[in-house]
Amino acid sequence: MRNSIETLAADLQSGQRRALAKAITLIESQRPGDRDRAEALLAALTPPDPPALRLGLSGTPGVGKSSFIETQGLRLIDAGHRVAVLAVDPSSARSGGSILGDKTRMERLSRAPGAFIRPSPAQNLLGGVARRTREAIRLVEAAGYDIVLVETVGVGQSETVVAEMTDIFVLLLAPGGGDELQGVKRGIMEIADLILVNKADGALERQAKATRSDYAGALRLMRPRADDPEGYPMALCVSAETGAGLEEAWAAVERLAAARRESGAFDRRRAAQNLSWFREELQQMLRQRLRAEPELAALTAELESAIQAGREAPVPAARRLLDALFGVQASR
Amino acid sequence: MRNSIETLAADLQSGQRRALAKAITLIESQRPGDRDRAEALLAALTPPDPPALRLGLSGTPGVGKSSFIETQGLRLIDAGHRVAVLAVDPSSARSGGSILGDKTRMERLSRAPGAFIRPSPAQNLLGGVARRTREAIRLVEAAGYDIVLVETVGVGQSETVVAEMTDIFVLLLAPGGGDELQGVKRGIMEIADLILVNKADGALERQAKATRSDYAGALRLMRPRADDPEGYPMALCVSAETGAGLEEAWAAVERLAAARRESGAFDRRRAAQNLSWFREELQQMLRQRLRAEPELAALTAELESAIQAGREAPVPAARRLLDALFGVQASR
Repeated sequence: MRNSIETLAADLQSGQRRALAKAITLIESQRPGDRDRAEALLAALTPPDPPALRLGLSGTPGVGKSSFIETQGLRLIDAGHRVAVLAVDPSSARSGGSILGDKTRMERLSRAPGAFIRPSPAQNLLGGVARRTREAIRLVEAAGYDIVLVETVGVGQSETVVAEMTDIFVLLLAPGGGDELQGVKRGIMEIADLILVNKADGALERQAKATRSDYAGALRLMRPRADDPEGYPMALCVSAETGAGLEEAWAAVERLAAARRESGAFDRRRAAQNLSWFREELQQMLRQRLRAEPELAALTAELESAIQAGREAPVPAARRLLDALFGVQASR
Repeated sequence: MRNSIETLAADLQSGQRRALAKAITLIESQRPGDRDRAEALLAALTPPDPPALRLGLSGTPGVGKSSFIETQGLRLIDAGHRVAVLAVDPSSARSGGSILGDKTRMERLSRAPGAFIRPSPAQNLLGGVARRTREAIRLVEAAGYDIVLVETVGVGQSETVVAEMTDIFVLLLAPGGGDELQGVKRGIMEIADLILVNKADGALERQAKATRSDYAGALRLMRPRADDPEGYPMALCVSAETGAGLEEAWAAVERLAAARRESGAFDRRRAAQNLSWFREELQQMLRQRLRAEPELAALTAELESAIQAGREAPVPAARRLLDALFGVQASR
């Protein structure tokens, strides 16, 4: 095993596309033995220096997310970047892949040599999708992609999860000012660094400007993030169709990234993200251990349903499970 | 120990104020032996049926939070309720108790027989304050308080933490519309069910109405919470000074609580909160176990600083720590 993993890591880091695809398939695999190999692979990779820029992007279906990614992605590749596009969509396991299910959605970008597009891992739980996507970010970065775009349709908590694995978060909206049906999910205002109102062209241009202005007003009611330059979070108009505003939008991303690198906020955020990833991973591994032991799995299920029904208090239940966990181990 | 804990639980549940104060002191105690007794006490209590209403309240210093709680609290007691006021303030350990440090802040309420006021537990970390406050909620409820108000000044993540332990979340603001210095913390719009603009009296009434309207506009741009009745989240004007709007504000709270009870959302939220409390507790207990073993504590510290510096990847690090944790246990 050691040899094949070392070869895979070397091939991936030398930029071989097929090795990258194989590595992602390995980390997404649910076969028991594959997890050990996936962990060995992750341990063998060197993170890029300077770090890649990780961009979160959210937008509900219909806002023109695919066209935006394609047009902006091709522009960035023309400017000399290598762009990876990953997705977090916990519904894809049920729907058979609602985003990035097929590459025809971004046909031109998927054919570009500087681009790598990967659909959402097919897992039922957001936690599982998040773990695999965090690992995929490490893989594409080791393979030399310096811009990693993580997109989500925003099902459940997926925007928060994406914000926690990226450096800058962008929300894409369609024109539709004031209309409550257009309303963004609660919480998104907290995490968005940049709100882009798409389709600011032709007949919709006026409405796009009004929508932009509504959101700019709402953003002004909130306290800015400490250390961010003036004007952020920011709302802008773009058109993936005509290309209008795309250059300005990217400049706004770069200006923010540069300011955060300068102030140290970029590194602090990465360090905090890594630390919480470590703690979540520890928790997940512990949960797997609880599931793997039939006696403990039964006790966990029993306690969890008693807690949800209000029959058992959380603190004494946690104590019982912890005692059982170490008791079982000690008696072996 | 068993006997004294059983007596304490019985005294507390029969409504003895001194027993309640003693019980809260016990759960807040950091002496090693006291934790076992605190856990035994929590296990001995029966939760109230129907459940109490847990209300989160946030407001920065200067918005008139104490007067609001006092006036509204006395109104509720007059209407036959028993009201407990708890606080979550992670800064109180440093500042010597910035909120509820002395009861003179709400003098009339603290003298009312139907009220119980407790300052924030003095712990340095928000996690510790949150654990003790969740436990204090259980205690005051077992002692017969049917309305539990958990207030916070909103330092760091404390609003989110309070929202996660309450049924309904209220944000109190002062008039100051549009002014960015007045800006609420990002994320608060996500968790607020009700925004109350205080000081809507005298010279400030007009400005209070304008502020209310600004926030109502911002709330309309966001998608409402599934299952909530129309009009929520809602922004209203109140005056703790004249009492104007307090009745309407409480009616808005009760209407929302009733609708959520009806739809089952109330119980689902409680069940989810209890489950995540259990999981957090398990994690905390595990972390304590890691700290208690010098070898493991050293390894944890080493891995955490390597992860933050980017020298170690989170997944392999988690595996190493978990192996060490169970290795140490197995070899005993």
